[in-house]
Amino acid sequence: MKKIIVQKFGGTSVADTDKIKNVAKIVIREKQNGNDVVVVVSAMGHTTDHLVKMAKALSPNPSAREMDMLLSTGEGVSIALLAMAIQAEGYDAVSFNAMQVGIMTENIHTKARILDIKTDKLRKNLDAGKIIVVAGFQGVTEDGEITTLGRGGSDTSAVALAAALNAERCDIYTDVEGVYTTDPRVVPKASRLDEVSYDEMLELAHAGANVLHPRSVETAKQFAVPLRVRSSFKLDNLGTLILGVDKMEIFKPVAGVAADLQQARIVVCDVPDRPGIAAGLFGKLAKENISVDMIIQSYARKISNTNDIAFTVTLADLPKTLTVLESLKAETGASDIKVDDNIAKVSIVGAGMIDRPGIASTMFETLAELNINIKMISTSEIKISCLVDKSDAHKAVEALHKVFGLECDEIADVKGDLPDV
Amino acid sequence: MKKIIVQKFGGTSVADTDKIKNVAKIVIREKQNGNDVVVVVSAMGHTTDHLVKMAKALSPNPSAREMDMLLSTGEGVSIALLAMAIQAEGYDAVSFNAMQVGIMTENIHTKARILDIKTDKLRKNLDAGKIIVVAGFQGVTEDGEITTLGRGGSDTSAVALAAALNAERCDIYTDVEGVYTTDPRVVPKASRLDEVSYDEMLELAHAGANVLHPRSVETAKQFAVPLRVRSSFKLDNLGTLILGVDKMEIFKPVAGVAADLQQARIVVCDVPDRPGIAAGLFGKLAKENISVDMIIQSYARKISNTNDIAFTVTLADLPKTLTVLESLKAETGASDIKVDDNIAKVSIVGAGMIDRPGIASTMFETLAELNINIKMISTSEIKISCLVDKSDAHKAVEALHKVFGLECDEIADVKGDLPDV
Repeated sequence: MKKIIVQKFGGTSVADTDKIKNVAKIVIREKQNGNDVVVVVSAMGHTTDHLVKMAKALSPNPSAREMDMLLSTGEGVSIALLAMAIQAEGYDAVSFNAMQVGIMTENIHTKARILDIKTDKLRKNLDAGKIIVVAGFQGVTEDGEITTLGRGGSDTSAVALAAALNAERCDIYTDVEGVYTTDPRVVPKASRLDEVSYDEMLELAHAGANVLHPRSVETAKQFAVPLRVRSSFKLDNLGTLILGVDKMEIFKPVAGVAADLQQARIVVCDVPDRPGIAAGLFGKLAKENISVDMIIQSYARKISNTNDIAFTVTLADLPKTLTVLESLKAETGASDIKVDDNIAKVSIVGAGMIDRPGIASTMFETLAELNINIKMISTSEIKISCLVDKSDAHKAVEALHKVFGLECDEIADVKGDLPDV
Repeated sequence: MKKIIVQKFGGTSVADTDKIKNVAKIVIREKQNGNDVVVVVSAMGHTTDHLVKMAKALSPNPSAREMDMLLSTGEGVSIALLAMAIQAEGYDAVSFNAMQVGIMTENIHTKARILDIKTDKLRKNLDAGKIIVVAGFQGVTEDGEITTLGRGGSDTSAVALAAALNAERCDIYTDVEGVYTTDPRVVPKASRLDEVSYDEMLELAHAGANVLHPRSVETAKQFAVPLRVRSSFKLDNLGTLILGVDKMEIFKPVAGVAADLQQARIVVCDVPDRPGIAAGLFGKLAKENISVDMIIQSYARKISNTNDIAFTVTLADLPKTLTVLESLKAETGASDIKVDDNIAKVSIVGAGMIDRPGIASTMFETLAELNINIKMISTSEIKISCLVDKSDAHKAVEALHKVFGLECDEIADVKGDLPDV
């Protein structure tokens, strides 16, 4: 039986008919390698923005069900066009939307999760020698309702299809050349990683490296689907392979350094040292769908018998968080709520740090030498994060990237502006 | 049980978000009348042209299957937007594409015919008080392949839905105010018909009145669905009701006059008077999908024992027709093939002419008085057509319109240029 390769192309890769022709060539090259190919595509370039704009002109708050009906047409266009472009090169191709394939999801609009993918139609068409083009980002419920998968949805569609078809690999083609040791716009000597583990990738993604949405990486990890991230425009570069840590040889303790500038720190001051206070506070935040990242509770002060509780949320969630805290002020008895939105979370990530002591102290020493004050620390098995002043973030990343031996010899050729500080 | 009204809005009626808001108001007004409403919409304005242009940029001859996949996205956009616009006015609405409803068609791409429409989902949602918005122009095969219905497809979708739901009426909203006794751009005193029979409408449509595609009128006739053609922009005008002749009181013998300027006459000269010659000729033309309209075979000449066979085809089919005739020249033994593309077919149509003699002679006399030469004549139960010189067409229409008492008192307010002569 032939190997199956699933390929995924995002909106920028199919933004116009010339780019669609380029994608057709990449697809055909994989077919010529002797593999069966299933291609997942997103909507063309700015299609989604255009559709959302029309919806907003008609309704201040359009229903989620109809938004899904509307947005799912975007991939309907790109799959048909890509199938035509492949056919024009003399190869047999057929396009299917999620309803036709049977990409079954929960009945939750705008952020459904995939429950099951039917493979009969896909296998039948692959066996007939066809290249299959599938609409990403969308699904269908048992009742025939059209759903969409939310952010990173097309990546997730591709990985789930690869899992369902027991594919050899899922190749995510995008406008970056792979996963880097750190943001090449901040550190020009950032190196592209040839391999990275699912867990490292997840920590890097959560820490602000936006190559792949965490959901697609989690799905790939769950089904052990090897995932390759590579550029649709620089084909001589194989990009980065994301796979299980058991399949990797790890030479370096730290795989990457990331800075997350979209964080705010909140300190709830002088909370009585009573059981249930923290549970009440974070329970209420969770109910409002606010993700809390780092949490520190200070030791109770002997005299006042009170605590300070400090935690971080994303800047986007800050207003909602403050509303919740205000409503809880009487209940918690807090004397004050302090907000610091001038911070950044700097993280080092590496599966190799598990068995090697001293990584944390190297990080702290490096920051100390630069006179960078650490405001909070949190750790996981493969990540250490420090909260620092926003103005220190780039300097910290640069130094950590160097001290953990991640610099490459060549300077990365990466376009784009530096992230705002 | 409530009465069901099916409404259909074409591409110009939903060309932008403001026009979609206008459509939402018309839909809601019908709901406020106490009726259940099912709305069928076409793709927005120039969407289809834009999609076709992209397809042509990718492939000189895109596959029909992928064209259907591509074009069906157009109505996907308009149904979702219209549902949102209705919801924004506080009414419950839900949109369905053809696959979701179950508008079952033959497995023929770009011009499929509807075989069956499932009504369970529609009835369930109507019973729940919802306004239903359905994608016109598209269907689905038993195997889940997406099809489109070809020209006039959305009108046909609407009529077929009305038939399946046993609807009270099907209202076709368009950019004209109804069906006229003749083209108001040619005869300013043309009057709008309050009623016209299916058969008259079919003859008028075939004779060049492009208000409705004949297919939708045929379907309406087959299932006895009353059809109303009216303007989406002038709501105080009820338009024209198209219904069975048995339900009409007919006062005038002639309902309308039409001119078809898109015809060419062909004469195949000196064909031997042998059985099977005409059958061979028209059989070959039919095989090439060329519709032949008027046919005249002259009496066999005694001396040469040959015939002339004259017939008309549309200008669009003329090149294909000549190719077929050229290939048959040896077989038929024709001495010459003459083409006249400087002609027009002028027709009078009326269910009332069945029982009234003298209509034909009035027509011929009227033309004779104007010195208009009649080149061919064909008749059906409710139509008489004369082939005349193209330059005589408008003059003929004007005179016939007057002599059969079709003039109205007011001059119709119609925009648009005169058709080319």
